[in-house]
Amino acid sequence: MRFATVSAGGEQLYGAVVEGGFVALSPDFQHWPTLKSVIEAGALDQLEAAAQGRAVTHTEFTYDIPMPDVVRILCVGVNFPDRNAEYKDGSVQPKYMSLFPRFSSGFTGHEQNLVRPPENHTLDYEGEVVVVIGKPGRRIKAEDAYDHIAALTLCNEGTIRDWVRHAKFNVTQGKNWDKSGAIGPWLVPFRDATQLDDARIITRVNGEVRQDDTLNRMMFPIREEIAYISTFMTLQPGDMIVTGTPTGAGARFDPPRYLKPGDVVEIEVNGIGTLRNGVEDEA
Amino acid sequence: MRFATVSAGGEQLYGAVVEGGFVALSPDFQHWPTLKSVIEAGALDQLEAAAQGRAVTHTEFTYDIPMPDVVRILCVGVNFPDRNAEYKDGSVQPKYMSLFPRFSSGFTGHEQNLVRPPENHTLDYEGEVVVVIGKPGRRIKAEDAYDHIAALTLCNEGTIRDWVRHAKFNVTQGKNWDKSGAIGPWLVPFRDATQLDDARIITRVNGEVRQDDTLNRMMFPIREEIAYISTFMTLQPGDMIVTGTPTGAGARFDPPRYLKPGDVVEIEVNGIGTLRNGVEDEA
Repeated sequence: MRFATVSAGGEQLYGAVVEGGFVALSPDFQHWPTLKSVIEAGALDQLEAAAQGRAVTHTEFTYDIPMPDVVRILCVGVNFPDRNAEYKDGSVQPKYMSLFPRFSSGFTGHEQNLVRPPENHTLDYEGEVVVVIGKPGRRIKAEDAYDHIAALTLCNEGTIRDWVRHAKFNVTQGKNWDKSGAIGPWLVPFRDATQLDDARIITRVNGEVRQDDTLNRMMFPIREEIAYISTFMTLQPGDMIVTGTPTGAGARFDPPRYLKPGDVVEIEVNGIGTLRNGVEDEA
Repeated sequence: MRFATVSAGGEQLYGAVVEGGFVALSPDFQHWPTLKSVIEAGALDQLEAAAQGRAVTHTEFTYDIPMPDVVRILCVGVNFPDRNAEYKDGSVQPKYMSLFPRFSSGFTGHEQNLVRPPENHTLDYEGEVVVVIGKPGRRIKAEDAYDHIAALTLCNEGTIRDWVRHAKFNVTQGKNWDKSGAIGPWLVPFRDATQLDDARIITRVNGEVRQDDTLNRMMFPIREEIAYISTFMTLQPGDMIVTGTPTGAGARFDPPRYLKPGDVVEIEVNGIGTLRNGVEDEA
């Protein structure tokens, strides 16, 4: 089942996306005002049971990010070895992963346009899998890490590339432009390790494959991300970890191939879905 | 007037701190459930008017961070020139400020202990002034920036120093240990440019002055911080900007002087107050 937050008829709703449309569930679950509060209540199974057999309520709707009230989004830096340059320069994998927070304001929903600002045109894509924490924990052991995941979704961790280099020690200002990235289309409940361990992530721009890798090649596997992050902070239900992108972002090309208005970016992962976004110049 | 969020008798309240104790206001303002929602409603003046002449309701209470529901906390890196090394190495000021987000989980309230984790003992202090945004804005001009500030508070931007160097391009993991820093004691309404322009910040550890500087020496003045940040993201009421620390953190000494259990750190700024925290080892 696929759980989304959408806007329809001037209100924001959460529910299930099914063949033929959207099944609004939030009107019947007012004690859980948002999809995030469902996750916090550990009630995704209950929501799924309630959704069985319900009729489509909306055929006209637009996607918001799956949890518009998400507070903590932690992103892992580039997390796959370069297929071509591997071992070429003798460099070894860094000891620790690179981590940076992003605010929800930096993201738009599925089928919405990424926004390229007038200040800088180096808007770039990064396809990534997102895990949504469902169970709190501190100093979680890697072997227990998957028990703390409630759901999966996708992220286009869109970046204004020139601005990540403004400061020496932080990428913040290149990673938080309003609506420069996207999260969605929906949350898929996480029930089985193979949903991550056997996943392949493909990013296409206008149909051309730019990133294509398998999650089992991650330099820092998702289990280790959860273990490491929870060393310093207590993970809480509703936290999102954006687990890192393969090589192949536009900045890696010579000359770089940045996004421009009219482009369409798709991030596809088997078993989760396809996150699709156009690109527009800021109005 | 000084507005705080406190815990008393098992509940969280906001109100005014006055001579002799705490005046609970939140029970009378249930349409504004938190101090952050007062800021979002632009109602700090209204709260202040309502507080006039009220009697103390609590003499026993503990301080929480002033806005426990704060979502976006943006910190500016070291932001004062070194008084001793100034110009010595011919280095010029970086063109752009360093910026990094912190989560509220990284902070505790006034008079609570900072927590030193068992993994690493390089817990360090950084005294800073915090501005709370009161009016939304994108691409705010520096000369208009102060119009967007609703209130001021203080931050001990406590850091696990060794962990800021884990990753090459981000300080995230050294800056987000649970309760490694503090915010408070309270919010002071911002009404006059001199509250910032004439302010002096002093950090003491066990009574010994470690940081002492004036805000008019900032490399990136607060007006420019607001202008720069709002270039890439729309600032919203309730956002906090932690405006950068003077030199003199423990890591600057040779050998470094990190915090240890039993130490007391005070951050004092004229017109705002004194944020005081002990230090304890994690239980």
